[in-house]
Amino acid sequence: MIGSCRSCDSCCNNLENYCSEVIITYGAKYQDGTTTYGGYSNIMVVDEHFVVHIPDSLSLDAAAPLLCAGITVYSPLRFYSLDKPGMNVGVVGLGGLGHVAVKFAKAMGVKVTVISTSPNKKQEALEHLGADAFLVSHDQDQMQAAMGTMDGVIDTVSAMHPILPLISLLKTQGKLVLVGAPAKPLELPVFPLIVGRKMVGGSAGGGMQETQEMIDFAAKNNITADIELISMDYVNTAMERLLKTDVRYRFVIDIGNTMKI
Amino acid sequence: MIGSCRSCDSCCNNLENYCSEVIITYGAKYQDGTTTYGGYSNIMVVDEHFVVHIPDSLSLDAAAPLLCAGITVYSPLRFYSLDKPGMNVGVVGLGGLGHVAVKFAKAMGVKVTVISTSPNKKQEALEHLGADAFLVSHDQDQMQAAMGTMDGVIDTVSAMHPILPLISLLKTQGKLVLVGAPAKPLELPVFPLIVGRKMVGGSAGGGMQETQEMIDFAAKNNITADIELISMDYVNTAMERLLKTDVRYRFVIDIGNTMKI
Repeated sequence: MIGSCRSCDSCCNNLENYCSEVIITYGAKYQDGTTTYGGYSNIMVVDEHFVVHIPDSLSLDAAAPLLCAGITVYSPLRFYSLDKPGMNVGVVGLGGLGHVAVKFAKAMGVKVTVISTSPNKKQEALEHLGADAFLVSHDQDQMQAAMGTMDGVIDTVSAMHPILPLISLLKTQGKLVLVGAPAKPLELPVFPLIVGRKMVGGSAGGGMQETQEMIDFAAKNNITADIELISMDYVNTAMERLLKTDVRYRFVIDIGNTMKI
Repeated sequence: MIGSCRSCDSCCNNLENYCSEVIITYGAKYQDGTTTYGGYSNIMVVDEHFVVHIPDSLSLDAAAPLLCAGITVYSPLRFYSLDKPGMNVGVVGLGGLGHVAVKFAKAMGVKVTVISTSPNKKQEALEHLGADAFLVSHDQDQMQAAMGTMDGVIDTVSAMHPILPLISLLKTQGKLVLVGAPAKPLELPVFPLIVGRKMVGGSAGGGMQETQEMIDFAAKNNITADIELISMDYVNTAMERLLKTDVRYRFVIDIGNTMKI
């Protein structure tokens, strides 16, 4: 985001991301009516309140996606108190959001279980990203064995999917946090929520103060996104590959070196 | 409840109600296999841990339903931090649970809005129970005007019903707490949860320590359930009236004076 009203309750509580007048970095309108172009811009004029300082130890290209994917998972880990060492937290979906969720949660000292529909992501999750366990979501035996073991689950999936199996993974008072928004309503089984005092919550990005905190935490713990750096003239190909989810895990456009003006 | 395992995490944290071996007062089995008869018993032998002391200032008949309806709404008001003076809390459904939810929330200093499908409950809610406001849930103008105003909503309805209108009533970070369990899953709209960092949670009863705390709070604030005291031989008629929701708000059987043995 590059602007907000700066005076509402959300803005006054460092939650500019929940301001009803928030201006999104890409595809929105500045106060003067011009369109925001976000990561497709070569320059951008922005109020300093909405600028984040990237510590020198982070490479700019691999740090860039943290300003969306990173804060989107960091904020709920903090807000929903899923950041305590020794806790068990599940991460559903191993994509742009999920892979940095694993990195942040691990750096917080949390034990992380990746839950995925794709058994072939197991090695990546455990060996490359350092997750502690891996569950194939449609493997009923695996899911059954893990029932009632998790303090929380961060669900990054924006496709339609059942959440009862995820709620079942939670301990009493466990929290399922949705950060991916399916287009249609999901089925919410009420009885399991009631008898386990469980909750289902949402989260969208983070405020500027917390975003700086997340970046500083990332620098301290050597966390960046796994990216594929592309040139501007590769954008259309990248879009086609995105539709096939053929990217591990984020494309980053090298605007400075490849944009022709 | 009249028993639990006494050794699991829930039991060790005064949450016997969430113990997987909890023994319910009525229609369950004691450890020795005999059936529990709850409020239909003339005597009951029970571990003192599961006995609640009713202060002399409370009449036993009108206090009795607090041990289910009372704690069922008191516990989530406390747990979900909807108990702070000046907060705005909605109560959906004005029945056995809802009417005591209004009384407890008011005693906590909370501003209470009753939300009901029945416009004819308005006078009862405002004048008799002391609610601050009343919304007819199918009146779109009323619901629209109240959007984004509530810190939390306690939903006591166990019939199928849409929860999007209730989520819309919540402020950013507001909480919808379900204490009535519809038989089928409800539709959960995810986007409104995400963009408002809202949550939907459940709650079932309360532990023994909190139940005593609730009763003591009720005594201090002169809270009892509104009841209709009946004799044992009226039970079948009462059952028929219950099916027609023809009770304001709980039947209580006068076992001591009317049970023939």
